[in-house]
Amino acid sequence: MNLLKEKIIEHGRVIGNDILKVDSFLNHQLDIDILNEIGKEFKKRFENSKIDKIITAEVSGIAIATIAAQYFNVPVVFAKKTESKNLDSETYEGEVFSYTKDKMYKIRISKRYINSGENILIIDDFLANGQAILGLKEIVDKANANLVGVGIVIEKGFQDGGKLLREAGINIESLAIVDSMSEGQIIFR
Amino acid sequence: MNLLKEKIIEHGRVIGNDILKVDSFLNHQLDIDILNEIGKEFKKRFENSKIDKIITAEVSGIAIATIAAQYFNVPVVFAKKTESKNLDSETYEGEVFSYTKDKMYKIRISKRYINSGENILIIDDFLANGQAILGLKEIVDKANANLVGVGIVIEKGFQDGGKLLREAGINIESLAIVDSMSEGQIIFR
Repeated sequence: MNLLKEKIIEHGRVIGNDILKVDSFLNHQLDIDILNEIGKEFKKRFENSKIDKIITAEVSGIAIATIAAQYFNVPVVFAKKTESKNLDSETYEGEVFSYTKDKMYKIRISKRYINSGENILIIDDFLANGQAILGLKEIVDKANANLVGVGIVIEKGFQDGGKLLREAGINIESLAIVDSMSEGQIIFR
Repeated sequence: MNLLKEKIIEHGRVIGNDILKVDSFLNHQLDIDILNEIGKEFKKRFENSKIDKIITAEVSGIAIATIAAQYFNVPVVFAKKTESKNLDSETYEGEVFSYTKDKMYKIRISKRYINSGENILIIDDFLANGQAILGLKEIVDKANANLVGVGIVIEKGFQDGGKLLREAGINIESLAIVDSMSEGQIIFR
């Protein structure tokens, strides 16, 4: 998706060899026009699949999934990271290992909002080590729903999440795959 | 906004005298059609105001603000609750008192994404005690930006946030004001 790659080149900030900051348009400030182009592209990539619902994990997947859902005409459900009195006690849980914090945390979706047999598309902003996607897949599996595919805005191709998930047979569509960011230069696959 | 009130009556679940669960359409599962109607209504309520940017706080304001931003043709910035390596070190901070957790926490927006003189609309899902809105207002004030108004989907009229903010001269537009929920019956103002 060339428009996205141009946006990343123009506005992305590389810190060290592995942090790509796109907070000017994707996950802090949100550029609604590029989110709509991303949504249309996800629809194109999955246009032959039956999708009943889009799921994502809080926080940074929410805006992307919500805009994309307009092109699929389906609801979104976002998995929650914290227990609260606003979340039902009956939930499907997925475990996510955080490399940055070196510990497991749980994400949860109320059993009311993901049903057996539903065709699920997962959408998220980044794919790096793949742990968040595995946590969401665990929720889909526990609900006996059907994971149709995963739509990712930016895949860090130099980390092993993409390989891990593709080898597990998951249909991943990444709109931009960054193969290297050494010396501040972004190289796309 | 009658459509919203009907949706709350039909799908809202009252727990005790003060918890209104609308997680089937507003803050866990997201009904994209009602979010669009909410966005259009916010545009109508603020159509005579110049708005340059919409801000909200993570998590549950994000989807609502993002859909609404399509009708204002402006970007969204969401304030973050956690410090992370993905957030700039130079931020404007607002303090929020949480009654449920009985402690203060901070919300932050990068100084890059809110500018002096910008006309800001705050959007959030609920207004109860008003503390989250005060935290966002603190950020707007520190940035020397101009708070044009606050758009709220559901105001709990039996808590004191609305009164507090209106007495402070803030222009609040709430699409549904719930005055009472005793014995499970929702009474709108």
